[in-house]
This record gives sequence, structure tokens and C-alpha cells, in this order.
Amino acid sequence: MSGHRELTVELGERSYPIYIGEGLLDEAGKLFERHGISKKSPLMIITDENIAGRHLAHLESVLQTAGFAVTSAIIPAGETSKSLRELERLTGIALESGLDRKSAIVALGGGVVGDLAGFVAASYMRGIKFVQVPTTILAHDSSVGGKVAVNHPLAKNIIGAFHQPELVLYDLLTLQTLPEREVKAGLSEVVKHGLIWDAEFVTWCDENAGKLLALDADALGYALYKGCSVKAAVVSKDERENDLRAILNLGHTIGHALEAVAGYNELLHGEAIAIGMIGSAKLGVRLGAPEEVYHVTKRVLSRVGLPVRLPEHLDTDEIMRAMMHDKKFQEGTMVFIVPTAIGTVEINKSVSAALVREIVEELKQEAV
Amino acid sequence: MSGHRELTVELGERSYPIYIGEGLLDEAGKLFERHGISKKSPLMIITDENIAGRHLAHLESVLQTAGFAVTSAIIPAGETSKSLRELERLTGIALESGLDRKSAIVALGGGVVGDLAGFVAASYMRGIKFVQVPTTILAHDSSVGGKVAVNHPLAKNIIGAFHQPELVLYDLLTLQTLPEREVKAGLSEVVKHGLIWDAEFVTWCDENAGKLLALDADALGYALYKGCSVKAAVVSKDERENDLRAILNLGHTIGHALEAVAGYNELLHGEAIAIGMIGSAKLGVRLGAPEEVYHVTKRVLSRVGLPVRLPEHLDTDEIMRAMMHDKKFQEGTMVFIVPTAIGTVEINKSVSAALVREIVEELKQEAV
Ligand SMILES: NC(=O)c1ccc[n+]([C@@H]2O[C@H](COP(=O)([O-])OP(=O)(O)OC[C@H]3O[C@@H](n4cnc5c(N)ncnc54)[C@H](O)[C@@H]3O)[C@@H](O)[C@H]2O)c1
Ligand SMILES: NC(=O)c1ccc[n+]([C@@H]2O[C@H](COP(=O)([O-])OP(=O)(O)OC[C@H]3O[C@@H](n4cnc5c(N)ncnc54)[C@H](O)[C@@H]3O)[C@@H](O)[C@H]2O)c1
Ligand SMILES: [Zn+2]
Ligand SMILES: [Zn+2]
Repeated sequence: MSGHRELTVELGERSYPIYIGEGLLDEAGKLFERHGISKKSPLMIITDENIAGRHLAHLESVLQTAGFAVTSAIIPAGETSKSLRELERLTGIALESGLDRKSAIVALGGGVVGDLAGFVAASYMRGIKFVQVPTTILAHDSSVGGKVAVNHPLAKNIIGAFHQPELVLYDLLTLQTLPEREVKAGLSEVVKHGLIWDAEFVTWCDENAGKLLALDADALGYALYKGCSVKAAVVSKDERENDLRAILNLGHTIGHALEAVAGYNELLHGEAIAIGMIGSAKLGVRLGAPEEVYHVTKRVLSRVGLPVRLPEHLDTDEIMRAMMHDKKFQEGTMVFIVPTAIGTVEINKSVSAALVREIVEELKQEAV
Repeated sequence: MSGHRELTVELGERSYPIYIGEGLLDEAGKLFERHGISKKSPLMIITDENIAGRHLAHLESVLQTAGFAVTSAIIPAGETSKSLRELERLTGIALESGLDRKSAIVALGGGVVGDLAGFVAASYMRGIKFVQVPTTILAHDSSVGGKVAVNHPLAKNIIGAFHQPELVLYDLLTLQTLPEREVKAGLSEVVKHGLIWDAEFVTWCDENAGKLLALDADALGYALYKGCSVKAAVVSKDERENDLRAILNLGHTIGHALEAVAGYNELLHGEAIAIGMIGSAKLGVRLGAPEEVYHVTKRVLSRVGLPVRLPEHLDTDEIMRAMMHDKKFQEGTMVFIVPTAIGTVEINKSVSAALVREIVEELKQEAV
């Protein structure tokens, strides 16, 4: 465990540690034991079909060698697995494998596996222990804060719980197999955490974009550490999502609308919010923030390989309508997270819809 | 609200009140408002088809008159509605009706409606407010403690949460339409709460059995008040079901086995645990409790109209096997809640399976 990084998500008696480093899977036995995962009750690893072939046998064998009783369940990759149907199937496997109140569920995967496995853990016997082993960059975001959920045919993430893990174990080596496009999309949320909270870290991302894209272990470890730290700081102050936590939605109002309007897989979540964050930066400048807010935001996102121009064929009316469904809209004004400087945002509750529309149009003309 | 009774379930910041009285539905508007249910966001009443025709319009009109925005959803009566399928359907109705984070779910019904609606409330947007309006006697039990759940094809109550209501509103008038067999079955848990905690209350039940069966408002109000109070005292000390809460399972090890072995509807839950409690009393006497533990237990259960003899055609081997699935069984000994006197029980972790078998046989010969 030389050279690994560690931080604590402070949530009173629900506080938990995040370990970040190369080769940490090898330490899983020791760390699970340290954080109270029982060897007497079977534990269940949940992962998806893409990850299973690459990292599952490794984690299973480390845990078995350490004396844990391990069962595994594999879900189809992708967002559609975040369903009550998969929840029922996984609960059946848990029952057949004899999981009891002292058992733990281990999520080995990205945000899809984490959200689904987390809700299985939250609801199985009304709540058992949960461990996150994130394998995507985006999952630095989903593994902090305890939000777990499945989707309903009518709405994403609508059926869920707050369920904090016992620990998060981030092995940078697992990220080596992540497709390049997923790497970039994940970096979008990393940059977001800088933009809402930490100007110095934005500068660092700007300067180290190349290393991040090359998955340089030290740079990546630092970036994930910083990203997790910002998210942890925000959720520690606002565990149940009252007010402050809203700043985590920088770029998401436009981003969600783009995801809704674009065809399946045209825009990944991280790509959509990159465009959204540039929109928010433009909005910030219109509302009085210094010009550099826009220039720096765009430059850093572009350097980590993210799109900065809104695809022209997406219809502006449709985008506007999708945003209005986002509920933060009332009578001609919208709630928006708006940067006031690099590293600082405010929650603006009366942004005019007309201005937002202008900005959506401008985003289609953005120079790349 | 003259003559109503009130108690508080003490759970720190999750404490909530229970109101018990005749005609309390008429006060729903005032009480909902007093306990923070929002008039700005729509609320959704969930009830079953048997109750809907009798009490739904009444509750809807009281709440609408008080200025609440009310939607209702009706589920099929019976245990099979406690499913993820119903959860998904109800979540869809909630979405279509515009329920938001500030909305509340109101359970108008027995334990089935309470458990299902409670889990909808626990999981919708990761948890919204919840109100219980119990319409069965058994629901005095399910409305205290915050356990909510649905069933999995392989196991009952296995997918759920702890989610405390904002308030419980028990209108004794709604109980007037309850079928007689359900009245008796509900009284079984009322008597259980006496047997585990309060000898005087057992004597009271013994003396007032006739009034209870006649649904005399004052007697019923007192009995539900006492039943809720005992359950509240137990769960206040042990919210997350560690140890003490186990005493609530008096009669349930045998009872669950009988439910599993008997045909559908041959034994209601309350009937099965009545036989189970007599079994536990016999066990207590064998292990040193005074003889009267058995005599009094049997007399009071019999006076409130419950069966005291185990149906002879149920196979003893099957009953024993079903108990062993109940997990509290290890290598020839079982965990049992055993009375030591009327009003006091102990958790005995080494009851011999052979002795339990003898008692099951004896229960088939019980004089009625
Ligand atoms: N709970 C939260 O707070 C929170 C926050 C943000 C996002 N999310 C959720 O996260 C999900 C998106 O997460 P994601 O982007 O990690 O998606 P994902 O889990 O679907 O992973 C993306 C793709 O990468 C593959 N993959 C993952 N790890 C790999 C590896 N190491 N090697 C090779 N392939 C790998 C997966 O199979 C998948 O195809 C969404 O459902 C979103 O709602 C939740
Ligand atoms: N959450 C807990 O702590 C807890 C505790 C005990 C039991 N339970 C659960 O409670 C359920 C059993 O509860 P129940 O016995 O109330 O069953 P129930 O809700 O099915 O009601 C019994 C029957 O009476 C009908 N009914 C209810 N109220 C009526 C009224 N006022 N008039 C006419 N008919 C009426 C119902 O339609 C149903 O047919 C089980 O699912 C059990 O698991 C939960
Ligand atoms: Zn996001
Ligand atoms: Zn019971």
C-alpha cells in the first residue's frame, strides 16, 4: 500500500474512508477486515459483464485467500440494468447464497453497478453493509455521498435510498482497461469538482490534462483524490440533499436536457455536462463573472478531450422543453448553478429562460 | 377529538405520535398540518380494494376540504400486493401525479397497505414523508417501528427499509367494517404485547375480551393504546433490530412454520401465532415457569376467539423442517422466545429441537 492516498467522508457515525492507489485490489482482504466486513457471513460481489472478464477473478481470489466466503453475480453492462427487475434477480441470488444481516454487498464497477448494488444492499433485509470498488473515473463521483437508486420506466434514479458504504477501495490499475471515451467522460466530473470548489485544482487539471489522459498513476490518483475530497466536503455539509448539494449539478441542467434529446449513446453523461458547464460559464459571464471563467472552463474541458460544442442537429426547442421538465423551472425563470469565478458558483434562482435559450444557440456555434 | 388517546414513539429526531380515537378521520386535515405534511405538494393515499369502497372517499374529502392536493391509488387486497411490481406501478402513479420531495404517502389500510406504501415512501426520490392510517387491529403492530417491505418470490419482507411515519392516525370507526375473523386475528398481537411486557394488561384483556370482540370503542381504544405502547417501548430501545426487538417474536417461530405448512387462508397470521404462543407457554412451563403461564395464555387467547389447538392434519415433520428454515436453528438446538412469567419473556438460545417437537405434538391434542 505504498504511495496510496486516503480520505474520510465525514458523516458522523456513517463516516467512511476512501482508499486510492495502484494495486489496492491486492489489499482488499486486509482492508475489508479492518473495516468490519464479516468473514462468518457470505459476501456478494456484483459486477457487470465487461468488468467481470477483467477484474472479477482477481478480487474473488484475494478475498477468498483472506478467508471471506464469496459469491458473485454479473449484470448486463449499461444503464438498463438499473431496474427493479435486476434488483429482484440479485435479491434472489443473495437469498440462494445465504446472505444474512451480517453480510456485505461489494460493487465492483462503475456508477451503474454502484447505484444498483448499493440499492440491493440498502433494501436487502432492510439494509446490510456495502463496499464500493469503483472501476471507472466517473465512479469517483457516485461512490461519495451514498445516493443509490434504480430507474423507473418514467424517470431515472427515482427509486432509491441513501446508503453509505463501509469503505471505498479505488484501485487505479482497474482503470487501465477503461475505454478511452469513458476516461474522458469521467474526467468531466473531476473538472466539475474543481470548477465548483477549488480554483487551484482547475489550474492543475489544465496543466496535467495529458497525464490524466495517459492514465498516469500519480496524476490520476491525485485527481481522483481531489475530486472525491470536494464531493465529500459538499455532502458532509448536506447529506440529505437540501441546498448546498445543488452546486454539484453545475452543467447538469443543460447536460440532462442534451442527454434526453440526443440519441442513445450520441452523448455520454460526462460529455453532455461538459457542454453544459461551458453553457453555465457563458451564463456566468453574462451575469457579471470575469471573462476568464468562460475561457478557462472551455480550455480545460477541451484539453481532457471533451466536446465543447453542442451538436447542431439537436433542436433548441426540444432542449428547452427538456429543461423545463427538469422541474427547476417556473414562469419564465430557471434555477441554475452559475460560476461567479473559477472555483466558485452560486445558486441563481431567477435566470431568464430567454437568456438560457440564447446560450443554447451560442453553444452550437462554439469554436472547437 | 374528545376522548382520544395519544402516545409518542420515542426515536430521537425520528419520534412520532400515534393518535387513537373514534372519528379521528375527521381531524385528518388538522393533524396532517400540525405534523408538517405539505399542502403545496400533492399527497398520495394508497389503499386496497376492500377499504377503498368504505373509507377512502371520507379521507379524501376531509383532506381536500382542508386544502390538501390528494391523489389516490388502489391495490388488490392481500399479501400478493406486497411486490416489486406493485411498487413500480405505484411509483409510476406518483410520478404522473407530480409527487415531489415534499410530498407525502398516506397508507390507509392494514399491514399489507402499510408495508407496501411505506416502502414506496421510503424509496420514492430516496425517501419522502409517510403517514399511517391503520384500518385493522393487526396494524397497531405494523404501524409502530418503521419496518416497511415487500416480498420476494423466495422470501417474505426481504426487500425493505426502516422508514418512520410522521404520524399515525387510528380511527376506531374504520375498524367497524373489519371482518370478524380479522378482528380476532388482530387481537392475537395485542395479547402478545401483554404477554411479553405487561401482566396487568393480560389480566385486563382476559376480563374485557367480550368488549373487545364487540369492538366497544373505549375498550378497543385502550387495547390498541397499550399494544402500541409496548411495541413502542421495545423499538425505542432497539430501533434497528439488534436484540431486544426479538421478544416481539413470541409465538412466531412456531407460528411462521404453521403458516408455511398450512394451506393458503387456513390459518391467518394472528391465528397461527396464537397457537405458537400457547406452544411457547408450554415450553416455558417445561423450562421452569409457573403452570399459570400456560393456563392464563390459553384462556385469554381462547376468550378473544382464537384457535388454541394445532390442526391435526398438519405434518409434524414438515412443521419442524419449516422451523429450521427459520434460521434460528443450529445443531439440535433452537432460539426461542420463552415466557418466564405472565408479562415476562427471555430469549433462550438453546432450546432442544426434540422438546419443541414434543410440544408440537401436544398442541395437536390441546383441549379447546
Ligand atoms: N450515485 C451517485 O451519486 C451518482 C453520481 C453520478 C453518476 N451516477 C450514475 O452512474 C452511472 C454512470 O456511471 P459510469 O459512467 O461509471 O457508467 P457504467 O457503470 O455504465 O460504466 C461505463 C462503461 O464502462 C465499462 N467499464 C467500467 N469499468 C471498466 C473497466 N475498468 N474496464 C473496462 N470497462 C469498464 C462498463 O461496463 C460500462 O460499459 C449512471 O447510472 C449515473 O446515474 C450516480
Ligand atoms: N411492518 C411491521 O412491523 C409488520 C408487523 C406485523 C405485520 N406486518 C405485515 O402486515 C400484514 C398483515 O396485516 P393485516 O392483517 O392488517 O392484513 P391486510 O392489510 O391484508 O388486511 C386484512 C384484510 O382486511 C381487509 N381490511 C382492512 N381493513 C379493513 C376495514 N377497515 N374494513 C374492511 N376490510 C378491511 C383487507 O382488505 C384485507 O383483506 C402482513 O403482510 C405482515 O407482514 C408488518
Ligand atoms: Zn453527473
Ligand atoms: Zn406477527
